[in-house]
Parts: sequence; C-alpha cells; structure tokens
Amino acid sequence: MELTLKKIAQEVDGKVVGDDSIVIKGVNALDAAVTGDLSFFVDRRYKKDLKTTQASAVIVSEKNELYDGPQIVTSNAALAFAVVTGFFAPSVPIYPGISEKATLHESCIVGQDVSIYPMVYVGKDAEIGDETVLFPGVFIGDRVRIGKGTVLYPNVSVLQDCIIGNNVIIHAGAVIGADGFGYVKDGSKSAKVPQIGIVQVDDDVEIGANTCVDRAALGRTWVQRGVKIDNMVQVAHNVVIGEDSMVIAQTGFSGSVSVGREVIIAGQVGLADHVDIGDKAIIGSQSGIAKSVHPGEVLFGTPAMPHRLWLKTSGLIKKLPQFSERLRGLEKKIEELEKKL
Amino acid sequence: MELTLKKIAQEVDGKVVGDDSIVIKGVNALDAAVTGDLSFFVDRRYKKDLKTTQASAVIVSEKNELYDGPQIVTSNAALAFAVVTGFFAPSVPIYPGISEKATLHESCIVGQDVSIYPMVYVGKDAEIGDETVLFPGVFIGDRVRIGKGTVLYPNVSVLQDCIIGNNVIIHAGAVIGADGFGYVKDGSKSAKVPQIGIVQVDDDVEIGANTCVDRAALGRTWVQRGVKIDNMVQVAHNVVIGEDSMVIAQTGFSGSVSVGREVIIAGQVGLADHVDIGDKAIIGSQSGIAKSVHPGEVLFGTPAMPHRLWLKTSGLIKKLPQFSERLRGLEKKIEELEKKL
Amino acid sequence: MELTLKKIAQEVDGKVVGDDSIVIKGVNALDAAVTGDLSFFVDRRYKKDLKTTQASAVIVSEKNELYDGPQIVTSNAALAFAVVTGFFAPSVPIYPGISEKATLHESCIVGQDVSIYPMVYVGKDAEIGDETVLFPGVFIGDRVRIGKGTVLYPNVSVLQDCIIGNNVIIHAGAVIGADGFGYVKDGSKSAKVPQIGIVQVDDDVEIGANTCVDRAALGRTWVQRGVKIDNMVQVAHNVVIGEDSMVIAQTGFSGSVSVGREVIIAGQVGLADHVDIGDKAIIGSQSGIAKSVHPGEVLFGTPAMPHRLWLKTSGLIKKLPQFSERLRGLEKKIEELEKKL
Repeated sequence: MELTLKKIAQEVDGKVVGDDSIVIKGVNALDAAVTGDLSFFVDRRYKKDLKTTQASAVIVSEKNELYDGPQIVTSNAALAFAVVTGFFAPSVPIYPGISEKATLHESCIVGQDVSIYPMVYVGKDAEIGDETVLFPGVFIGDRVRIGKGTVLYPNVSVLQDCIIGNNVIIHAGAVIGADGFGYVKDGSKSAKVPQIGIVQVDDDVEIGANTCVDRAALGRTWVQRGVKIDNMVQVAHNVVIGEDSMVIAQTGFSGSVSVGREVIIAGQVGLADHVDIGDKAIIGSQSGIAKSVHPGEVLFGTPAMPHRLWLKTSGLIKKLPQFSERLRGLEKKIEELEKKL
Repeated sequence: MELTLKKIAQEVDGKVVGDDSIVIKGVNALDAAVTGDLSFFVDRRYKKDLKTTQASAVIVSEKNELYDGPQIVTSNAALAFAVVTGFFAPSVPIYPGISEKATLHESCIVGQDVSIYPMVYVGKDAEIGDETVLFPGVFIGDRVRIGKGTVLYPNVSVLQDCIIGNNVIIHAGAVIGADGFGYVKDGSKSAKVPQIGIVQVDDDVEIGANTCVDRAALGRTWVQRGVKIDNMVQVAHNVVIGEDSMVIAQTGFSGSVSVGREVIIAGQVGLADHVDIGDKAIIGSQSGIAKSVHPGEVLFGTPAMPHRLWLKTSGLIKKLPQFSERLRGLEKKIEELEKKL
Repeated sequence: MELTLKKIAQEVDGKVVGDDSIVIKGVNALDAAVTGDLSFFVDRRYKKDLKTTQASAVIVSEKNELYDGPQIVTSNAALAFAVVTGFFAPSVPIYPGISEKATLHESCIVGQDVSIYPMVYVGKDAEIGDETVLFPGVFIGDRVRIGKGTVLYPNVSVLQDCIIGNNVIIHAGAVIGADGFGYVKDGSKSAKVPQIGIVQVDDDVEIGANTCVDRAALGRTWVQRGVKIDNMVQVAHNVVIGEDSMVIAQTGFSGSVSVGREVIIAGQVGLADHVDIGDKAIIGSQSGIAKSVHPGEVLFGTPAMPHRLWLKTSGLIKKLPQFSERLRGLEKKIEELEKKL
C-alpha cells in the first residue's frame, strides 16, 4: 500500500504543511518510524522522540516547530492517525467459505460470504449473518443469532439463545452466555437457580479476550451499541452496560448493575450488585463501588470518593504513622499543661 | 410446559391463597412477567414491582397485601421459585451419543448415555461416566476420571490425571489441572518445580467460566462436595476448599490456602498462601486476607478487619484531610497555650 | 523409576548423611510421603511434619536432628528437590507425529519430531520448530513462528504474526496476540485504533492458563527470556517484561508498562500505563502502582509505599476510629484549658 501525503490529508480532513507529494508506505511510532513512514504526535511525553524521529511525515493537532518535515495538521490528530493506520493494517485473515471440517447443524441459517474456519461448531436453528467470520474452536449454541460483519476469534463460546449484533468483535477465549452465579440456600447446601435468560450484545461492540458475559437469570444481560470491553472482565447476570461506555481489563460487575452511556470504568474495579452508574461517570482503577454513582461523577478508591478528595486522602494514608506520633505528642503536652494549671 | 398453581404449590410445600386452578406457563421477574407467568417476591427493593406486576400468581414467604392475585405462601420463597424455574427451564442441549468428529483414545472407558459433541478430545485410559455431556472443544487428558451426570461446557480443559465427580458443572473455558506456579531460584534464573499432583473436584461442584484450578505440586488441589465457584477465579496449587463453600468471581487463592465448609468469599478477594479460613467465615469483596480467619468471622477490607470496624474505618478514610487540619489546629493552639503559661 | 540415594546426591551436588544405598521410588511432601519416598525440608513451618514423616530420606540445607533417617545435605535444598522431582515426573504426554484431524495450511513449515494433536489449526506460512507440542484446540495464526521444544496446552490461541521462542510453555486457554485495547474518541463514539504490532515471547518463558498478552498497537509487546507469568494475568499492548521477572496471578499491566529484569510482581497488582519498574524491584500483592518504581524498591499497598511503612500504616488504618475519638478528646481538653486561662 502506498499513498501520497496529499491523498492521506484529504481522507482525514487535514492540511499539509510542507511537501504533500511524498509517498507514505506505512505507519509507526515516532521512535520506530523509518523513511516512508507516517507518524503522529499527540502526547507531550514524546516530545523528545518528535525531535529525532526518522518518519517522513507526522500528523499533529497544530504545526510543531520541533519537527521540520511535512506535517498533516488536523483537529483530532489521534483519530486521524487511527484512520490512516487502518489503511495500512492487514485485514482480518479470512477462511474462504465454510470449511468441511466445521460442524454446522443442518437447521442453521448461514448468510452470504461468511468465513467459517475448521473446528467451528454451529448449533440447531442458529443464524450467522453475511460476511461474519468464525475462527477455529468457536462454539455457537442452539438458536444463537449472530449479525453481519461480526468476527469471533478462536475458541470463543456463545451459549444457546444469545444474540450478537452486527460488526461486533469478540476476542479469543471470551465466553458469552455461561450461567449466572445464582443459588439459594437449602439448609447448608446451595440449590442452583436455573439461569433461563440470555445475553444480548448490540452492534459495534468489542469484547476482550477471555472476558465472561453471563446469561441473565430471567430476561437479559445487555451490552448496548458501541460498548468496548477489555480482557478478562466479569459481567454478571442481568447487568446492563449503556451505549458507548468503556470497561478496562479485569473489572468485575456484580449482578444487576446498570451502567449509563459513555461511562468509563478503569481496570480492576469492583461494582456491587444492583448499583446504578450514571451517564458519563468515570471510575478510577481498582475502585470499589458499593453505592450508585451520579451522572458525570468522577470517583476513585475504596471506598470510592471524588477524584480530588482521593488524591489528598491517598497521600495522607502514608502519613498515618506521623499522625499517630503527633497525636501522642499532643496528648503528652496537654497532660503537662493540665498539671501546670 | 403447563402446570396448575395447585400442582406447583404441592411441589414446593406451599399453600395457595386464592384460586389454585389457574394454569402457569412460565416464570419471570415481577416487572417482566405477563399473563400466565408465575413470579416471586423475596426482596423488599421490588415492592413497587409487586404492586404493578402482570404475573398471574406470585410466590411469597407470607401473604402480601400489595398483590391481589393468587399467592403461593412457603417458608423459603426463593428456594421455591428456583425449584419452579427448573420445571420451565430448557434442559442442557444434548448431542445424541458420541460424535464421529470427536477423538477418543481407544483405551478410554465411556459410560451409558453420554453425549460427546464433535471436536472433543478424550485421552488415554480416561473414564467418562454415564450421562455425562462433553461440549465441543472439551479436552480430557490421559487418565482423567469424570463421574456421572457431569456437564463440561465448550472449550473446557481437564489436564492429565485429574478427577471430576458426579453432577459437576464446569463452564466454558475453565482450566482444571494446569501446572501450579512453582519455581526455585537458581542464581538469577527460575527453575521450574515439576507439578506432579492432581486436581480433585468432588460431586455437585459448579465451576465458572474461564476459572483456573491448578494441579498440586505434590498431592492434590481439592474442591470438595457442593462448592460453587464463579467465573475467573484463581485456585492455586494445593488449595483445599471445603464442602458447600462459595467463591465469587475474580477471587484469587494463593498456594496451600485451606478453606473450611460453608464459607462465603466475595468477589476480587486475594488470599495469601497457607492461610486457613474457618468454617462459615464470610470475606467481603476486594478484601486482602494475609492471616488465617477464625470460624464464623466476618471480615472486610485490606487489611481485613471485622465488618463493623470496617464500616467505621472506611467512612473515616475520607476524613483524613480533615484529621490532618484538626491536628495542625491543635498543635497551634497548644503552642499558644504554652506561650501564655 | 528407581534411583539410589547415592546417585541422587551426585545429581544435586549433595552429601549423604546416613545410608546412601537405599532406593528411592518417588518424591512427596513430608506429611504424605511413604516408605521409598524422598522428601525435603526447607520451610520451618513444617518442622512438626519432619519429626513424623514416613519418608525414607530427606533433602535438607543442613543436617537436621529432628529426622533420623538418611539426609542429603546440599546448599540449595529447594532447587535440589525440584531437580529430583523432575526425575520422577511424568513427561508431557505426546501425540505421535501430526494428527490427520489437525488442519495445517499447506504453506506452513513444521520441524522434526513435532507432536500435533487432533483439532489443532496452523495457519498460512506459520512455522513450528522441532519437538514442539501442540495440544487439541490450539490455534496458530498466519505467519506465527514458534521455536523448538515449546509446549502449547489445549485451547491456546496465538494470533497472526506473533513470535514464540524455544522451550516456552503456554498453559491452557491463554491468548497471545489479541488486539490491544485502543480507541480514540470520535464524538461520543469510540473509533478503533487498528492494532498492527505483534507479541514476541522469548526463550524459556512460561505463561499461565487463561492469561492474555495483547499485541502491540505499533511495534511489539515483549516478554523476555526466562519470564514466568501465572494464570489470568493481563499484559496490555506494548508492555515489556524484562528477563527472569515473575508475575503472579490476576495482575494487570496497562499499556506501555516497562518492567526490568528479575522483578517480582505479586498477585492482583494493577500497574498504570507507561510506568517503569526498575530491576529487582518487588511489588506486594493487590498493590496499585501509579508511578515508576526504582530498581530494588520493595513496595506494597495502594498507594504503593515502602514495605516497612506499609506494615505500620496498614496496622494504623484499623485505628482510625480511635484516632477520631482521641482527636475529639484533645479538642475538648484544649477548649477547657483555654477557658481556664
């Protein structure tokens, strides 16, 4: 793939400062780029790399004096670079058609131009949409419906009756629709509550490797349009995650948590059952969320608190030994004062 | 499936208040139920839904005035609803017999009425009990023994020599019997300690999706009868989890932890190696357990402390900035007092 | 397998105290050993077991009076026992040659004496080194290169273009080379940043079950020689883990974290993006690492602090309710003193 800088600038609504006729053959980070590569500068931590880069051109948000080659100036440089990277990225490796070594139930319905690798299993009355790709080891349970242009990477399991939308990406080893963790006590034993709901994953969702989204006890666990979930996230039964929200790796949602839209939840967060997270809230990494969160709130820590308070507090935790000594000192002095009086 | 309310009440040892001749066709949550559905009320948070539900009948622990249709009154309403849900739940989808596309070593022993899907692998001298179900992508290592009526969902791996009991459920992607994490230092390098023990999983255990139970270094890692483990839990080598205990998602056990019976360990807890957890102890979510826990103790937090203390303490953490100011204020005042004297 | 104690002592550079002609038939823990077993004593917690063990001989660092059978004395007894265990450990169960039920792309290059089980998939232009073992359900993407003597356990996925070295062990369900979690905002939506880098895993690495190592956005995510990673660890895009470092279960690395050599990171730790961890640093379990760590530092807790300070601090956290009362008491007394004056 080769593109002139002029052509690239047009695609990302950018303006070229410098020679727009040069030919770009790839993309790379500032410190790794070689002649022919386009790079980008959006994070001031990489100023040093911008000075010394071998890239033939860079994408920037405003013209930068540290770099003297041609620059594409565009308002959202990070987005522009993502778009350009897409031009040079290899496409998802496709299996031509349906492998004879896959097992498809005779009743299942398969769309046009699907790619079904060997060792895929597709169950009874399942539906696979046009141009969808199923990698080896994918399991599609009975009556599952999968939309168009969706990619399921190796060893993904989608259990019976679940619904996956269009243009969804599910990474290797993820499990959609395992039973939720539901028991009731029967004396000292735990009686299983049958989990008869489903998981619904809407369009444009991406789900990380080895992430688990459990089926609902009743009704549905619901991952809405545009949600992005990282690796090894636990989504319990009956959770709802609202449109365009993001969840970073190893976070765990207890049952019936409800998350609004455009929420950001960082890594290793734990959310107690039944809490509501308001639209556009932000939860810092490793936080413990025991109560509902208002729209737009920015919370960190365990117990969760506003970001500013958390910054102060987490600094002071280290001073507890000093506090302890100061308290003892004060108590002594007061005793002395009291004696004197 | 259709059942009269009378018949259902008999099955759960309940008493019908109202018309017991109505026909029930399904179960659902209060807010989602339609005519013909049975629902249940055990959690006061759903009072509002009880008033407005369209369910044809409800299961309750005592007659409730908010709902004017027929009610089944029974001492353990949650358990009763679980039992009734079971009547309406679809059974585990079975493959008829042993697929030709599965690979079974000629030496393995397979019981009556098993269901072995395509793409299953069963190793040398392995044993599979009657009515056990192995979904696609299941790997059964050499000499593994699996009991009767057990279900292994897609892409579960059970490594060589491990033992799985009767009526066990293991969800998709779980790994039973990977090597424990054992090394000894050999200069700067880490020499692997061969892990030659096994995992033993007793009857009536349920293990969540993508959970890992490592084989013992020597001897066995042991999950006892009736234990329920949620998704993505790490059970290290030589851990013992006692009968009827429950472990919620993403919790991690270090090596040789010993857990008593009927213990409840919430999500994202970490337990240091060699600690003992006494019978019926309860550990709150995200806790860090560095020392052994007495029977019946209820601990929360890091460091772990009694629940009451933790409630106070976690409130006070947020007040550290105020404490700091108050300390400074006191120090100033004392200085002034000292000057005056 | 039977070996005389004399022969074993020679292999581990040890000296026999007592009868060196006895025959050893196996290894076991002190409390589980039977006649014919060799055991070991390196941890004083097991003193009681040393007194009562039925083992025919023990390995120790110095002669111990509590045990009166023959002893092998050697400087690193733990290492010696690991070596001896290896003599008695069953070898990795091998499939003879390449199964007809595996799917290998015609263009792939396969070495001598490989073991490729049924239901393995090997993609276009992939390379598999001599004596490497691929268990059932393993997926090897296009152009992946795997070295010699490497073992990939069941249902491991290695996505396109990744590089795995020699003598690497990857446990069941691990995912190498899923896309990193990279998006840029495009209004309220999240635009995917194509992840076009790779994962490089060097020689002698061991990676735990269900662990995820994401491919780099650009360039490589790099796990260097001798690194040992436990189960369910999240290694994000562009992370580098230096030689001979160890990472315990459920820890999460954010993007571009750089770890030095011989670092130890305990379980359930979270590391913020772009932090550097210096050589030989040690990070305690459940810590939150928000800033870079100097070589040799020993940090615990959230916020992370030196181990000694953390020991003090975590004790004092439980005393916050007392602090609060003492503060109030002091304020009262000072008020009284002020009145008196």
